[in-house]
Amino acid sequence: MTTARGRGRPRGGGGERRDQILAAARARFARAGFAATSLREIAADAGVDAALISHHFGTKSALLAATLDLPFDPAERLAAVIDGDLEHLPERMVRTFVTSWDEHPEVFAAAFRSGDAAPVATIAREVVMTAIRDRLQGPDRDLRAALVTSQIMGLGLQRWVLRLEPVASAAVEDLVRVHAPAVDALVSGRPERSRG
Amino acid sequence: MTTARGRGRPRGGGGERRDQILAAARARFARAGFAATSLREIAADAGVDAALISHHFGTKSALLAATLDLPFDPAERLAAVIDGDLEHLPERMVRTFVTSWDEHPEVFAAAFRSGDAAPVATIAREVVMTAIRDRLQGPDRDLRAALVTSQIMGLGLQRWVLRLEPVASAAVEDLVRVHAPAVDALVSGRPERSRG
Repeated sequence: MTTARGRGRPRGGGGERRDQILAAARARFARAGFAATSLREIAADAGVDAALISHHFGTKSALLAATLDLPFDPAERLAAVIDGDLEHLPERMVRTFVTSWDEHPEVFAAAFRSGDAAPVATIAREVVMTAIRDRLQGPDRDLRAALVTSQIMGLGLQRWVLRLEPVASAAVEDLVRVHAPAVDALVSGRPERSRG
Repeated sequence: MTTARGRGRPRGGGGERRDQILAAARARFARAGFAATSLREIAADAGVDAALISHHFGTKSALLAATLDLPFDPAERLAAVIDGDLEHLPERMVRTFVTSWDEHPEVFAAAFRSGDAAPVATIAREVVMTAIRDRLQGPDRDLRAALVTSQIMGLGLQRWVLRLEPVASAAVEDLVRVHAPAVDALVSGRPERSRG
């Protein structure tokens, strides 16, 4: 489900139908939300076969990424973070998030500066929060998943939007080392804080 | 230094000189930065006595808050957070941040949507990060203070800008209970994660 197949722009032809699919997807996602929209409905709106959407975009989350003009599919990157062991999930999350967006800082910044913050909210809610929540155990899973997302977004805000030092220039592994324990506090969901 | 005296708008008269002071402060802060600017320099630029700035605004951070049209002085609120015991600092920080801005969600959102994010960056860098860093012990104090700030900003982003559930409607004490351990991981600066 989170594995993108055949993603990316086609080499030649199909550009018009690809644009029709994107337009239909944008309208459906805006009207009904990401979760309630099926590829079949988008295909019907666009007047194409659903298989053509899979051919052009792969998964529904990859289609969402394409409607938002994202340079990669966050769900695909996130899958590698989520699928591994829970103990090192915080390290993987910080490392994957930082290395992925370090390649496209201007896209991240543009998503925040676009006037309305809808694209950021859509990705956060429909892709990131959902995937994390399904991996957590214990109480307050929804709130903990949301706060993990807010931590990660706050990190991106400082690094690529506000460009605040020392976060803006910090080495990736320093961010992983220092920030992962904070993510872990939410991932492991310890209500009691143990002090050394 | 973080106690605001005589803050707020004067009851009558002085409006013109108050505006001159604000204009001079905005120009100086933009040109030289908050830390490198003295009230004396602003007074000279505005053609007033430095005592008049104290009379109208109190502290330099309160003057910064006024130049940014903030409804309260973040440094003043932060002082109560910073001054108490370190063990409960994370709880106090989350509670004070959320209750302060819950009264002015539109101001927080406007600061993010203003096109350039300078006001947010200025407050984060000059007021919040500095105050937190001075209270921390151990290694990576600059980075840990910055990441505490980014966590808190990410929380505000979800609650007042993106209005993402469940953070947008969460009870203050639920946010304190669930998020404070994550702040604490950075405040206490434990490099090792202990698992129960």
